[in-house]
Amino acid sequence: MTEIIASYRVLGRPGSFEKKAEEIALGLTVGTWTSLPELEQEQLKKHKGRTVSVKEHKGANGDEVIADISIAYPALNFSADLPAILTTVFGKLSLDGKIKLINLDFSTELKKHFPGPRFGIEGIREVLNVYDRPLLMSIFKGVIGKDLSFLSHQLREQARGGVDLVKDDEILFDNPLTPFEQRVTEGKKVLEEVYRETGHKTLYAVNLTGRTSGLRDKARKAKELGADALLFNVFTYGLDVLQELREDDEIALPLMAHPSFSGAFTSSNIYGASHSLFLGKLLRVAGADFSLFPSPYGSVALEKSSALSIKHDLLEQNEFKRTFPVPSAGIHPGLVPLLIEDFGIDSIINAGGGVHGHPDGACGGGKAFRQAIDAVLAGRSLEEDCAASPELAKALGKWGSPVESK
Amino acid sequence: MTEIIASYRVLGRPGSFEKKAEEIALGLTVGTWTSLPELEQEQLKKHKGRTVSVKEHKGANGDEVIADISIAYPALNFSADLPAILTTVFGKLSLDGKIKLINLDFSTELKKHFPGPRFGIEGIREVLNVYDRPLLMSIFKGVIGKDLSFLSHQLREQARGGVDLVKDDEILFDNPLTPFEQRVTEGKKVLEEVYRETGHKTLYAVNLTGRTSGLRDKARKAKELGADALLFNVFTYGLDVLQELREDDEIALPLMAHPSFSGAFTSSNIYGASHSLFLGKLLRVAGADFSLFPSPYGSVALEKSSALSIKHDLLEQNEFKRTFPVPSAGIHPGLVPLLIEDFGIDSIINAGGGVHGHPDGACGGGKAFRQAIDAVLAGRSLEEDCAASPELAKALGKWGSPVESK
Repeated sequence: MTEIIASYRVLGRPGSFEKKAEEIALGLTVGTWTSLPELEQEQLKKHKGRTVSVKEHKGANGDEVIADISIAYPALNFSADLPAILTTVFGKLSLDGKIKLINLDFSTELKKHFPGPRFGIEGIREVLNVYDRPLLMSIFKGVIGKDLSFLSHQLREQARGGVDLVKDDEILFDNPLTPFEQRVTEGKKVLEEVYRETGHKTLYAVNLTGRTSGLRDKARKAKELGADALLFNVFTYGLDVLQELREDDEIALPLMAHPSFSGAFTSSNIYGASHSLFLGKLLRVAGADFSLFPSPYGSVALEKSSALSIKHDLLEQNEFKRTFPVPSAGIHPGLVPLLIEDFGIDSIINAGGGVHGHPDGACGGGKAFRQAIDAVLAGRSLEEDCAASPELAKALGKWGSPVESK
Repeated sequence: MTEIIASYRVLGRPGSFEKKAEEIALGLTVGTWTSLPELEQEQLKKHKGRTVSVKEHKGANGDEVIADISIAYPALNFSADLPAILTTVFGKLSLDGKIKLINLDFSTELKKHFPGPRFGIEGIREVLNVYDRPLLMSIFKGVIGKDLSFLSHQLREQARGGVDLVKDDEILFDNPLTPFEQRVTEGKKVLEEVYRETGHKTLYAVNLTGRTSGLRDKARKAKELGADALLFNVFTYGLDVLQELREDDEIALPLMAHPSFSGAFTSSNIYGASHSLFLGKLLRVAGADFSLFPSPYGSVALEKSSALSIKHDLLEQNEFKRTFPVPSAGIHPGLVPLLIEDFGIDSIINAGGGVHGHPDGACGGGKAFRQAIDAVLAGRSLEEDCAASPELAKALGKWGSPVESK
């Protein structure tokens, strides 16, 4: 039977969880069961939720213990869209005490209603013609209140350093100084110039913002004007809005999901939802080609297990194309060995300050990262390469040497 | 200057908050400041965030204390839409440690970009021609897997009991047994019949569901077919989607916001956002005519202070029409004195089990609530009215007598 299995982590009194699970399974589907006449039970059977598992953990925290509960919800009960699924499995339930949504397991049939990424890792690699290393991304810095010439200069410097992708600052909205369409056309011009100069191709992800119903037209316009990719603050809009951008064949641009606002519902251990579900699985299901999330290394950091769980859900083999994990924040060239160890070749190394703050500027910052990546992939230490790689040497001088994996 | 002031509650080391506030004010606007040349400072001044206040609370919790921080963000930095505002004030910041978004204070100029409710409390009262008492609402029960005749019967019984509004179950999506359009037309027929029979007018809020880009057409169709109101799981779609439904003059239907999924980001004391902001202020700003939220009385309960803070933000006099507070869950007739004391006349008494579970069925349940409301407004105790109000007597027999305010 086609269904979705939701897994929750619950805090409660020891021995209370079987009953709690059954209350959820019924309360969020057919309402009641044992009091129903047999005929009605027969009729409603295919709509009834069921408890899949209840696992109470040992070790009390005061008078409460943790339990993992899994409930199956028949797909017959909801339309095959994420708002309906989230309302079913964690609508009212999100308000019902100490409960956190950990995972959703879509049945094969249900998955067919979702697109997954249009490009995925392989598609993005084809566009860039880069197959054998992590990609390198950098971020515009300090662009609020600046004009197009400032952005163009920054873009040029970043691209010259050999980054594969440059993304807009997620807090740069449509504005008179750097309007959306001009960012696209001017960005394209700059990147074509750098390509003619260096032979290196860089993609620019422009921030798609504004009112919800205008996004698709705006994205189509961006496509027409030659945009490379779209950055999108999906969690201030809605996952279904992302999915609609993905499904629109007239847009057909790589989609980069920003984790903006997601901390509001992923940070607590007791409430909300898991990082892996929202920044991993659901972004992939809905069609993001890239998922940005806090790296485990910087000041704005995720626990390493959370960051790796996101990576897992973005990369595991399943019906969907794979989504690039983009662990972000606090990244400098000295972290490259650790990043590759933790996130692998199929990931994106993304830096803001670690590119722009380089003693030789953004161009030097990009080079330092590329040199660090080359060293790691060749099996050499960063220090070994410093003599032949002056930008890397300067970066290590500024930010410190490779950090050991913990 | 037009701006938005965001207030946060932060946990951190004593004495660390002035610096934290300044980092936020700069980091989420112009990036850096003191290192900028004077000319650039002059140019960027109007884009710079500023610390409005920092108030450290006494009393440490381990080595951490609580502080309230307020930051002003110039409206020049963002487009006047809620996704842009939320990304600015709590995008990246939501991921940055122990911080909770408590309030947003829109400048007068900024408020002009938002609609507020189309009907508001006064508009809904005009439609119903009921001015002098709280409205009474009930909810369909156990409708998953049931057909249209079941729903019609339930609707009829509820309306006969004298409820002013009936809302769909929020987990009832478009489905072959009870398709959206047929729910509207059949619901209208039933309610017109009851009106002819009893002279009492009841409105039915149909659940607007499906893919985001289809919602407005579906809502327009509902309007054409004579729908009374729309129920909407706004937090699984996005606040901006609600606002677009509100702004569409061809829809022009009362909008009832369901708190589905909101517990994911409002339940923690440390992370996420306040109930009053999301279930109160922002729903009103975006245009909800009704806001449902957990009452402080039931098993799925909010703290009373949280529930009252929502009410405050929905009802305080400002540029927008007022939104009906609908404290929900665990409501039975014995709670009516307390509900009116806590939420006042301009609120909606909303019950599911407390209507359907009445010994005389939903019709009796509605009557019991109406009798309880009449008693309270006449200054009599519920017990006093029991002799003349058999349905109320039965309800008190089943669920218990009035509960004292705490």
